[in-house]
Amino acid sequence: MLTPWETPDYINYKETMEKFGIKPLDVDIKEFHLFRRKIILGHRDFDRILDAIKNKKEFAVVSGMMPSGKMHLGHKMVVDILKFYQNYTSNIYIPIADLEAYWARNIDFDKAKEIALNEYIVNYLALGLDPDKVNIYLQSKNEKVKDLALRLAKKTNFNEMRAIYGFSGETNIGHVFAPIVQVADILNPEFDNNLEVKKMPVLVPVGIDQDPHIRLTRDIAKRVKIIPPSSTYHRFMRGLLGGKMSSSKPETAIFLTDSPEVVKKKISKAKTGGRETLEEHKKYGGIPEECVIYELFMYHLILDDNELIEIYNRCRSGELTCGKCKKMAYERLIEFLKELKEKRDEVIDKAIEILSH
Amino acid sequence: MLTPWETPDYINYKETMEKFGIKPLDVDIKEFHLFRRKIILGHRDFDRILDAIKNKKEFAVVSGMMPSGKMHLGHKMVVDILKFYQNYTSNIYIPIADLEAYWARNIDFDKAKEIALNEYIVNYLALGLDPDKVNIYLQSKNEKVKDLALRLAKKTNFNEMRAIYGFSGETNIGHVFAPIVQVADILNPEFDNNLEVKKMPVLVPVGIDQDPHIRLTRDIAKRVKIIPPSSTYHRFMRGLLGGKMSSSKPETAIFLTDSPEVVKKKISKAKTGGRETLEEHKKYGGIPEECVIYELFMYHLILDDNELIEIYNRCRSGELTCGKCKKMAYERLIEFLKELKEKRDEVIDKAIEILSH
Repeated sequence: MLTPWETPDYINYKETMEKFGIKPLDVDIKEFHLFRRKIILGHRDFDRILDAIKNKKEFAVVSGMMPSGKMHLGHKMVVDILKFYQNYTSNIYIPIADLEAYWARNIDFDKAKEIALNEYIVNYLALGLDPDKVNIYLQSKNEKVKDLALRLAKKTNFNEMRAIYGFSGETNIGHVFAPIVQVADILNPEFDNNLEVKKMPVLVPVGIDQDPHIRLTRDIAKRVKIIPPSSTYHRFMRGLLGGKMSSSKPETAIFLTDSPEVVKKKISKAKTGGRETLEEHKKYGGIPEECVIYELFMYHLILDDNELIEIYNRCRSGELTCGKCKKMAYERLIEFLKELKEKRDEVIDKAIEILSH
Repeated sequence: MLTPWETPDYINYKETMEKFGIKPLDVDIKEFHLFRRKIILGHRDFDRILDAIKNKKEFAVVSGMMPSGKMHLGHKMVVDILKFYQNYTSNIYIPIADLEAYWARNIDFDKAKEIALNEYIVNYLALGLDPDKVNIYLQSKNEKVKDLALRLAKKTNFNEMRAIYGFSGETNIGHVFAPIVQVADILNPEFDNNLEVKKMPVLVPVGIDQDPHIRLTRDIAKRVKIIPPSSTYHRFMRGLLGGKMSSSKPETAIFLTDSPEVVKKKISKAKTGGRETLEEHKKYGGIPEECVIYELFMYHLILDDNELIEIYNRCRSGELTCGKCKKMAYERLIEFLKELKEKRDEVIDKAIEILSH
């Protein structure tokens, strides 16, 4: 039996997870909808983190951001995950990958800093991340991470990097080096300021497409004899048109700075699980598993399970029409975005301060 | 006609220089024996530096050291060159390649620092480098150089590094990155602390075997649109046994910390240009061009040209025997090493201070 949380592509996730040895996640964490709804669905060594939470021991969480493009709802999910963990640790690290942006995307450092500040950090804080619990830093400014990357560079070679990332001999050396800086970002909490090892389990919550990078990081951790980072894997909500959500295709994503007019237009064009005609819809019922609006509810807009299940059932029965759902999604979205905008104004000074040291 | 400064392998230098486009050096600098005696024999863009000296404009000199092994007379020549330039500039940079030592030779950072201090820096100062004019730094501790290296890494790729340095896919990424840190060491004086370009011609005095590295540095300088560094190329004195001088073969080199007994033994075994028998020597004369003791005089022990020419002529005539030359070399060497030891004791605190920030 399909649960309301299972989208059709769940099967593909399952295959990918089996192929790479990612274990299915089976935890009883009721307080967070992304766990309850199995949107976070796989893991490596997550037990180590659960144990730390249970026994009130220290652990760290690392989740990087690429300072390019605009922040959308897909990015918000990562913030929701970090908000869950900040209830249990103040060792949350958010590296801004400005070195990678420079090497791989030709974005200069000032531009990256500006994007990081105005698109990401201000939204991270506005969404509720606690500046006292998260350590947001620019890779290019973090001497410890850079030094760690320079040391860890000894533990891998071009063949390995090429196999994982598909680099060629023409790839610039900075670009080849970028994943090592990311490895250093992740392993950074396991070292003190003198780069001596300290005992600190690290969790990296990522999309399943990031697993090759997690495997490299775990391999390098083993080579330098420290605890390999734990990881959880989440599904992504699809783009509004049913394909991939992408910053570079505005019609696929709700940006956190979209105006009500833009949101209205995007929602009106979004893919649903509705039937061809209203008559058919009433007769056969809708297919919420295929509906992006339903995903918006599940990932972001409806945190009450009973309310979500009711919508699911009313859609399946044909009672609830796509127009009504879109209206509800639109109304909740613009309310959410309006409040977020107000909060951004409140936190902007703090965001500027974070990047000033 | 051979001049007293021309050893037989001069021809090979000439061929190498022609092949790579290094120009023969033809300068009239009487005050420094390494110029007078054409031990410094080739250059790229040295005119730019001569012009700066002549017009009292700023320029920088960069000469790195690898913190491994013991310092010997071969290394002293580089110090002599820097001493010449410190009369004209206080922008002398001496990077200690501890990052490269770590990546390529597995020497850890504490060990590298210890070797740098006790073997090199203390001797550099004892030999007469002015701590107010030279900037000695550990690569691993120089944030500006590391940041510059990270940026310049965008301007080269693995194919280029492999072609120049013979790296394979198995070479660790740190080792692949090491030449880029050296490029950054050289180009560092051309940038201010915010990595903005400033106009500062740079000179790198090197052995001719280092030219591939100079070419890479010049190419990268052109790619980032700054002045390509100038370079001069010097010959090396041979090892005491006639082959290559090497820290790892103590019998080939006079170390700056050798005791008189050790010096005596090494000199007694040194290769000369003497004939098989004393009789033949008197009859045919010696061959100073083949004599390592003569090279010791020319490079280090006899700075007066007339005195050197006299020895040259007396050897060629058969009048001067190898025993006499060895005795003279030994006496001058132990006197030099004794004074150097005293000076080391005077400068050790300063040397420690240099590495303490």
